Amino acid sequence: MVVSIDARRRAANDASKAWQVFTHGGRSPTGLDALEWVARAEKLGAGEILLTSMDRDGTRNGYDIELTRAVSNSVRIPVIASGGAGKLEHFYEALTEGGASAVLAASLFHFGEYKIADVKNYLRERGVIVR
Amino acid sequence: MVVSIDARRRAANDASKAWQVFTHGGRSPTGLDALEWVARAEKLGAGEILLTSMDRDGTRNGYDIELTRAVSNSVRIPVIASGGAGKLEHFYEALTEGGASAVLAASLFHFGEYKIADVKNYLRERGVIVR
Repeated sequence: MVVSIDARRRAANDASKAWQVFTHGGRSPTGLDALEWVARAEKLGAGEILLTSMDRDGTRNGYDIELTRAVSNSVRIPVIASGGAGKLEHFYEALTEGGASAVLAASLFHFGEYKIADVKNYLRERGVIVR
Repeated sequence: MVVSIDARRRAANDASKAWQVFTHGGRSPTGLDALEWVARAEKLGAGEILLTSMDRDGTRNGYDIELTRAVSNSVRIPVIASGGAGKLEHFYEALTEGGASAVLAASLFHFGEYKIADVKNYLRERGVIVR
């Protein structure tokens, strides 16, 4: 059971400086704190978390590494990072600094900018175990 | 490397009767055939496919089992079914008839209709191996 969470950073003037869970493709705020929510999902039996940053999704500016790290530190189950991949370095960052177990990517492969094999070779050269 | 694909069934009057790959949350058609695309993704080195039915996403009417089966028959890598989960039976269908290796769910857990443990118990009682 993979449980999906769409998270968005709260406004900079929000004292909590955290991330909120959204639904409906990131359009509807739930009021739930992302880190509390993933801890609860793990406790309830989730086998894996698909974590999408709605701030980064579609931007190709990189995964939200701070969010990914915060979530991967909050749970013991694997975290798939999603949202923002645009360069080879982004996968590496998510899997190292971000602590993700896997990375998700879509659109950049549609358009052939990188081959998946390029990403895997890049990661392997840097010591990241890839399947 | 999990590769994500958003697919939508072609119009009923389309002779191909197949699924097309979309981008941008299901809004932009690519012209690519979903089954050809996943076979290519596997060949290029994808480790896993996250398959979302844009026809079912958000409906809670169940996964697109025909799509899930067609994709899982087209590749040897694991397929995570996504889009449409609303009842316990839907998870079971995706993992059995659909041939999915894992199921993804989100919104129904936000609102507490089912606990994840309920889903896992339901599946275990029916002989599905759950982690």
